[in-house]
Amino acid sequence: MSQPGSLFVSPLARLSLSRPLRLPPMRPLTVDSLNPAVRSVQYAVRGELAIKAEEHRVRLKENGADHGLPFDRVISSNIGNPQQKGLDQPPITFVRQVAALMEWPDLAKLAPQVFPKDVLARAKELHEETGSIGAYSHSQGVPFIRQNVARFISDRDGYPSNPNHIFLTTGASAGVSLLISMLISKPKKSGVLIPIPQYPLYTATLAQCSGAAIPYHLDEPAEWSTSVDEIRAAINKAVQDGIEPRALVIINPGNPTGALLNKETQAEVVKLCEEHSLVLLADEVYQSNLHRQATHPFTSFKKVVRDLNSPVPLVSFHSISKGVTGECGRRGGYFECTNLSDDVIAMMYKMVSVTLCPPLQGQIGVDCLVRPPKQGEESYPLWKEETDRIHKALAERTATMSARLNKLPGVSCVDSPGALYLYPRIEIPEKAIAAAKAAGKEPDAFYALALLDATGICVVPGSGFGQKEGEYHYRLTCLCPGVDEYVGKLEKFHLEFTKQYS
Amino acid sequence: MSQPGSLFVSPLARLSLSRPLRLPPMRPLTVDSLNPAVRSVQYAVRGELAIKAEEHRVRLKENGADHGLPFDRVISSNIGNPQQKGLDQPPITFVRQVAALMEWPDLAKLAPQVFPKDVLARAKELHEETGSIGAYSHSQGVPFIRQNVARFISDRDGYPSNPNHIFLTTGASAGVSLLISMLISKPKKSGVLIPIPQYPLYTATLAQCSGAAIPYHLDEPAEWSTSVDEIRAAINKAVQDGIEPRALVIINPGNPTGALLNKETQAEVVKLCEEHSLVLLADEVYQSNLHRQATHPFTSFKKVVRDLNSPVPLVSFHSISKGVTGECGRRGGYFECTNLSDDVIAMMYKMVSVTLCPPLQGQIGVDCLVRPPKQGEESYPLWKEETDRIHKALAERTATMSARLNKLPGVSCVDSPGALYLYPRIEIPEKAIAAAKAAGKEPDAFYALALLDATGICVVPGSGFGQKEGEYHYRLTCLCPGVDEYVGKLEKFHLEFTKQYS
Repeated sequence: MSQPGSLFVSPLARLSLSRPLRLPPMRPLTVDSLNPAVRSVQYAVRGELAIKAEEHRVRLKENGADHGLPFDRVISSNIGNPQQKGLDQPPITFVRQVAALMEWPDLAKLAPQVFPKDVLARAKELHEETGSIGAYSHSQGVPFIRQNVARFISDRDGYPSNPNHIFLTTGASAGVSLLISMLISKPKKSGVLIPIPQYPLYTATLAQCSGAAIPYHLDEPAEWSTSVDEIRAAINKAVQDGIEPRALVIINPGNPTGALLNKETQAEVVKLCEEHSLVLLADEVYQSNLHRQATHPFTSFKKVVRDLNSPVPLVSFHSISKGVTGECGRRGGYFECTNLSDDVIAMMYKMVSVTLCPPLQGQIGVDCLVRPPKQGEESYPLWKEETDRIHKALAERTATMSARLNKLPGVSCVDSPGALYLYPRIEIPEKAIAAAKAAGKEPDAFYALALLDATGICVVPGSGFGQKEGEYHYRLTCLCPGVDEYVGKLEKFHLEFTKQYS
Repeated sequence: MSQPGSLFVSPLARLSLSRPLRLPPMRPLTVDSLNPAVRSVQYAVRGELAIKAEEHRVRLKENGADHGLPFDRVISSNIGNPQQKGLDQPPITFVRQVAALMEWPDLAKLAPQVFPKDVLARAKELHEETGSIGAYSHSQGVPFIRQNVARFISDRDGYPSNPNHIFLTTGASAGVSLLISMLISKPKKSGVLIPIPQYPLYTATLAQCSGAAIPYHLDEPAEWSTSVDEIRAAINKAVQDGIEPRALVIINPGNPTGALLNKETQAEVVKLCEEHSLVLLADEVYQSNLHRQATHPFTSFKKVVRDLNSPVPLVSFHSISKGVTGECGRRGGYFECTNLSDDVIAMMYKMVSVTLCPPLQGQIGVDCLVRPPKQGEESYPLWKEETDRIHKALAERTATMSARLNKLPGVSCVDSPGALYLYPRIEIPEKAIAAAKAAGKEPDAFYALALLDATGICVVPGSGFGQKEGEYHYRLTCLCPGVDEYVGKLEKFHLEFTKQYS
C-alpha cells in the first residue's frame, strides 16, 4: 500500500488526500428518508403540550420571580405519573424497603434495625431466588416471581394460572407492542379493533407496525360503556374495506374514560371474539383503581373466559405503574396468555429474548404488587394505611372534580368509577374553532394550549385519544393535590375562554 | 332484549343459548398466522442451547444427587452476564449504595453511618434532580444525568457533547432497535451493513423490520480486523441486488471477536460512510473492557468523526451492562447522536415517548458509570480496588484461555484484546458433520450441544453470529472463575469429540 514519497505522511492525512473528489457530496439524513411507518406514529400524551409545559417549567426554574408567566408552577395532568414532583403520592414504603435491600443486600447485616422483619425475610427469599439484580434474568422474568404472579391471578379469579404462560415486561406498554407486532401479519391489510377514545399507545404501535386501527366508539351518554353491536359494525366495515381484524383491544377500567365493563358485556365480548376468531387483548392495568366498587366492581377477562369455558385466545396486561403502587419509573408489568398454543408462546419467548430481560427492579416491583404484606406481618399496618389513603384520595378527588366540572356551562363529565382520569366533554365556541383552524390546530388542542398558557395546567386534548366528529374533550388526571385550587383554575379558565370567543 | 320465559335465566346463560350455531368454529391462533417478519427472527444467544442448559439446571436442582448428568453445575458461557449465579463478579459497591439510597431515601436519616459521605451527597443530589425513581422521567432520560453523560463524553474525546442529543435507553439494545427501525424505509429494499461475525441483535432487529442484513466479513487471520475494501465490496453487491445501504454497524471492541479497530481504519470507515451517505452505528458497549491497552487502545468514533471534521451522521451506543459495572439486570445505557438534524432527533424523541421512559435504576446506573468516585473521596479506594480486580481477572482469564485453546489440535483462537469473549475456530471432523446433518443441526451447534451435555458448559455456536462457509466457531465468555477446571473441561471434551468422530 505504501508508495514512494508518502512514507512520512500520516495515514489520516494520506486518506484525506486520496479522497475521491469526483464523488457527489454526502446526502444528509433527513426525516423524509426515514421509515414512513415511524413518521406516521402519533403520541399525544407526550406531544406538543407536554413539550410546551416542559419549556414553561424550565422558564420558571431559571428566571426566579421574573418569569413573566401568569402562574408559579406547571401542573402535569397529562400523564398518569403519580409519583412525579408536585403530586402528593409517595411510594409505598414496603416496596422501597424490599427494593433497597435487593440493591445492597449488606444492609440486612449493617442496619437490620431499620427494616421490619417481614421485609428482611422477603428480601432474603427474593435474593436467593433471583440472585443479583444486576444479572439478566430469564427472558420471561424470574421464574419464582412468575409463580407468585400465577398465584395472585388464581386467587383473584378462582382458576389456575400457569407461570410459563406469564411474561414479565418493561411496563405493560412493552407487552402491548410485542403482541401487536406479532399479530399484524399483512401490513395495512390486518388490523386491531381499538376503542375510541383509546390510550394512544395502541394507534402508535399499530402505525409503527403498519397495521390498521379499526375504531369502535364507546357510548358517552351511557357512562362510556362498550357496545358489542358497535364492535360488530366496526368488524363488518373493516372486512368490507379488505382489512382482516386480528384482535380486539378492551381497556378495562377505561383509559381515558375510567369506565368499567359489567360481566354481561364482558361475556358478550368474549363470544364475539369467538365468532370472529379474534385475539382478545385485555388492558387491565387500572384493575385496582376502583372508586365505587359496590356498583362498579372489576372482573378480569381471564375469569370471564374461564367461566364461559371459551377457547378465545386472551392476553391480559397488568402493571406496577398504576393502582396505588404508582411505580412508573421502575418499568414493571406482566401479561398472562390464556388459550395460546405452546408454539405461539415459544415465538413470544424468542422475541423477548432479543431484548434480554425486563428490568429487575421492575420485576421486584411486580413481586411486591402480587405479594403485599399480610395481616399480622410487621409491615402490614403501614402498608394498609398508605394504600387506603391513596385509594380514598383518588376516589374523593375524582368525585369532586367531575361534580364541579359538570356544573360548568358547556362542560359535561362522566364521573369515572375507575382508573386515574376524567375525560370531560367541552363545547368550544365557533369563534374559537375558527381561531384554531387559522392557527393550524385542532380546536381542543387550541383550548388545551390556552389552558396551559393561562394556568400552567397541562392536559391532553381529546383529539389525541379519538372522539366523534365535532365533539371535543380533554383528559386530565385526578392525581393533583389541592383540588379546590386546581379545579378553580380550570373553571376560571373555561369561563374566560368561552367569554373571549363568544 | 328480555323475552317471556327468560326472566330467570342469567344473562350469561342467555347469551350462551343465543349463540349462533351456524357459525364456523373459531380458528385457533397458529404460528403460521403470525407476522412473517417476527417468525423469521433468530437469536442464538438465548436459543436452543440456552433452553437446554436451563433444563439441565432445573434437573440438577430438583433431583439432588440422582440427577444422572455427568456434571454438577451448568456454566453459562453463552451470555455476557457478569453477575449471574456461579460467576464471581460482584456488583460495584458504590453503584449499589447510591441505588439503595435512591430506592429508600429515608436510609440517609435512619442509617447514615453505613454509607460513605460522598455516596450520601451523590444520592441527595440525584434525588433532588430526579425526584422519585418511581416517577416517569423525561422520555430521553433525566436531563441532569444526560448532562453528566455529555461531560463524560467530552472529557473522553476532547470535543463538546450536547445533552439534548443524548438518549438514555433500556440497555443499548433498545437504542439499536430504535435506530434500525427508523432507518429501514423500504422493507426488503433497504439494508444495514453488519460485520460477520456479529452480535445477533442486529440480524434479529433487521428481520423484525424486514430490512436487509448486508454482511461484510472480518479478517480472522489479521486478528479479526475490519477491512474497508471488504465493506466497499459488500456495498457494491447490495446495490447490484437492488438494496439501498442505509447504515453501517461497527462493533468496537468487537462482539464476538474482541477485536479493536485502530484509528487509521476508523478514519477510513468514516470516509467510506461519507462517500456512500451511510449512517454510522457505533456499538461501543465494551469500550472499557481493554486487556492490552498499550497496543490496543480504544478510540471512540465520535472523536474520529470530529478529528476529521466529517459530516457523517453517527450514533454511538454505550451500556452499563458490560465494562466492570456489569449491571445487565438494571437495563441501562445511552446513545449519542452526532451530525443528526434536529428534526430527526425530534422524531426519535416521539418514538421513545411512546415507551414512556427508560427504567430509572438503569438511568442511575448510567450516572454512576459516567461519574465514578474521584480520588480523595471516601468511596474511591474501594471502588478502585473492585474495578482493578475485575479488569485484571478478565485480562488474565482471556490470555490463559486463548493460549490453552490455541494449543489444542484443530483449534485456533485469536487472543482478544477487548470485550468479554473468545471466538475460537474449531475443525469439526467429517463424520461429525455428517452426524450433525443427520440430526438436522449445524455442525457447530451439534458440537456445542455435545459440549453442554458432556460438561455443563453452555457456549453459542458460530452459526449464531455468522462465519464463512465451511468454517466453525463458538463464542464463550471469559467471565467464569476457576479457569483451570473450566478450560480443562473444554480441552477434554474437544479431544474426546475429535476422537469419537475420527
